[in-house]
Amino acid sequence: MTVDITLKKAVDNSYEIVIDALPQLSFNRKVAIVTNPKVAGLHLKYLLEHLDADELYIITVPDGEMYKNQESIDIIVGRLFDHRFNRNSLLIAFGGGVIGDMTGFAASIYQRGIDFIQIPTTLLAQVDASVGGKTGINNAYGKNLIGAFHQPQAVYIDSCFLKTLPQREFSAGVAEIIKMAVTFNKEFFEFLEQNDLYDDQNLQEALAQAVQTKARVVSQDEKERGLRAALNYGHTFGHVIEKETHYSTYLHGEAVGIGMVMANALACELGWMCHDEALRVKKLLERYQIPTIYAIKDVHAFYETFYLDKKSSDRAITLILPRGIGDVSISNTIDEAVVKRVLEGFAT
Amino acid sequence: MTVDITLKKAVDNSYEIVIDALPQLSFNRKVAIVTNPKVAGLHLKYLLEHLDADELYIITVPDGEMYKNQESIDIIVGRLFDHRFNRNSLLIAFGGGVIGDMTGFAASIYQRGIDFIQIPTTLLAQVDASVGGKTGINNAYGKNLIGAFHQPQAVYIDSCFLKTLPQREFSAGVAEIIKMAVTFNKEFFEFLEQNDLYDDQNLQEALAQAVQTKARVVSQDEKERGLRAALNYGHTFGHVIEKETHYSTYLHGEAVGIGMVMANALACELGWMCHDEALRVKKLLERYQIPTIYAIKDVHAFYETFYLDKKSSDRAITLILPRGIGDVSISNTIDEAVVKRVLEGFAT
Repeated sequence: MTVDITLKKAVDNSYEIVIDALPQLSFNRKVAIVTNPKVAGLHLKYLLEHLDADELYIITVPDGEMYKNQESIDIIVGRLFDHRFNRNSLLIAFGGGVIGDMTGFAASIYQRGIDFIQIPTTLLAQVDASVGGKTGINNAYGKNLIGAFHQPQAVYIDSCFLKTLPQREFSAGVAEIIKMAVTFNKEFFEFLEQNDLYDDQNLQEALAQAVQTKARVVSQDEKERGLRAALNYGHTFGHVIEKETHYSTYLHGEAVGIGMVMANALACELGWMCHDEALRVKKLLERYQIPTIYAIKDVHAFYETFYLDKKSSDRAITLILPRGIGDVSISNTIDEAVVKRVLEGFAT
Repeated sequence: MTVDITLKKAVDNSYEIVIDALPQLSFNRKVAIVTNPKVAGLHLKYLLEHLDADELYIITVPDGEMYKNQESIDIIVGRLFDHRFNRNSLLIAFGGGVIGDMTGFAASIYQRGIDFIQIPTTLLAQVDASVGGKTGINNAYGKNLIGAFHQPQAVYIDSCFLKTLPQREFSAGVAEIIKMAVTFNKEFFEFLEQNDLYDDQNLQEALAQAVQTKARVVSQDEKERGLRAALNYGHTFGHVIEKETHYSTYLHGEAVGIGMVMANALACELGWMCHDEALRVKKLLERYQIPTIYAIKDVHAFYETFYLDKKSSDRAITLILPRGIGDVSISNTIDEAVVKRVLEGFAT
């Protein structure tokens, strides 16, 4: 005997991304803001002036990628249980990508899933991490290897938070903007070549372009079964670099910057990208002091670490490689010897 | 500026439940069977005779509700990383409800979600736990408080596994069957009164009825926003009993059995159920040696523990109470004093 079970999908996974000054937010439920001490010190007052809730709690977790782990999740959900948060309660992720990823993951597993909204305070989180519903934590095996797809209820992108952002973090965000342009939009890349993102109006324009691109891709492929994987351009290499340096040397965007240079080198080797284009990308990265060099100590070990990447399967490594600026291809048939030859070019 | 993000839902959440002898299963991917030493000793050979995969691993975790925790999840996902499982890999939950809940949760968070199938080996898991996509673990705050809704790809219900099931576990499964009848189906309840489930044909009939009822309810309300909560009849009380006895005195189905008796007592007190009907339920439970008494030591503490239930919000406790046999109501407006008066009736 066979019983067929068909689930009526609730059409409740759509949400809006507001790119503007933070509006007044009012919630008839328990709300917890998850943040870190640094962001709280700089911006919590501003957020609280815009926020109203039945009960409001602040949960702070330590600042930094090395704390994006199970222990921090335990801290967050423990506090939620202590305050008797229920299925109707809401979390607000208030910080950079680390805070967003952890808050989203905590929301996804607390009592089998509660709502959360994203208020990203770094450029990187604003243009990339806060949009798309990817949540997760790192573990001993690598980055973002434990997690869930859990869409936020809304994303509020307010550029006022960027005024206090250190130069390095700003640049790390620019790296993701450049990534979006190289991957999907040649005109946007040219805009970035011709306009300075330290100018506020240019930055707003770039934010809008990057978020729209991301939203379009995610709408078409929420669970990364195809197109969305292209957004990982630079990330396959970048993740290995972050892991090798124990998530402490480079900011995520910086590692992605180096990763893009590596991906471009491979694309050039394969004849998919010309050296002139690779140079234009490198120059644009360097204009924002984004690192573009990394000394690989052990090419074999570097290559082996690829296998822990979520996009790779068994002995096939999935790589996102540009076919010139504004176009990208996803391939899992690149010859190991060719990849290693290119990696040798980065070896000490 | 506002960007609207609309996610195209993949219609991939439907699956089939096969109530029959296990068919031959063949998978072109990596597969891990998650089980415990007891089930493996009794039935692994049978499963392996029906299973073919590219690579096949056996992951055993300790047997028992007290091991349904983060540590066991860490064991499972650690092994998956060691064997380089990827997004295309598959888990098979092979055991009772504990194995099913943990395997499903591990599948839901491993690399943001991979496939799993359920092959339940206990009556309780066959009639209830394996169907519906609820996954999760316990923690210091209570049962199933961390988890996800993650639907299996398929459920295979083979009654041959029940031949080795201890009497107590069989009865615990019968408790969930009775629950399904009291909640949704008076005729099914009468069938259970008139027919002996130790008879194989009657058992098959009851399995089919229970699974169909569950599938119907879950199809209409996957995320438990309404109707599905009714399936928790007996569970609100049962969870407190399990927590107070540290998940070691009663099997889940046994605690639910006591919980149904408590819920009925409250329904009688409110005049929603007549004493004769409550007695019929109690008698049916007792026919299978399902416990129906529990000595509450501290009524106030018992009541307070309700608040950690996922269905309760703030100071409103959600209770599932029968309106006679075959009908049920969900209420969060029951007066605390009335509930406590009924609980006093169970106090030592």
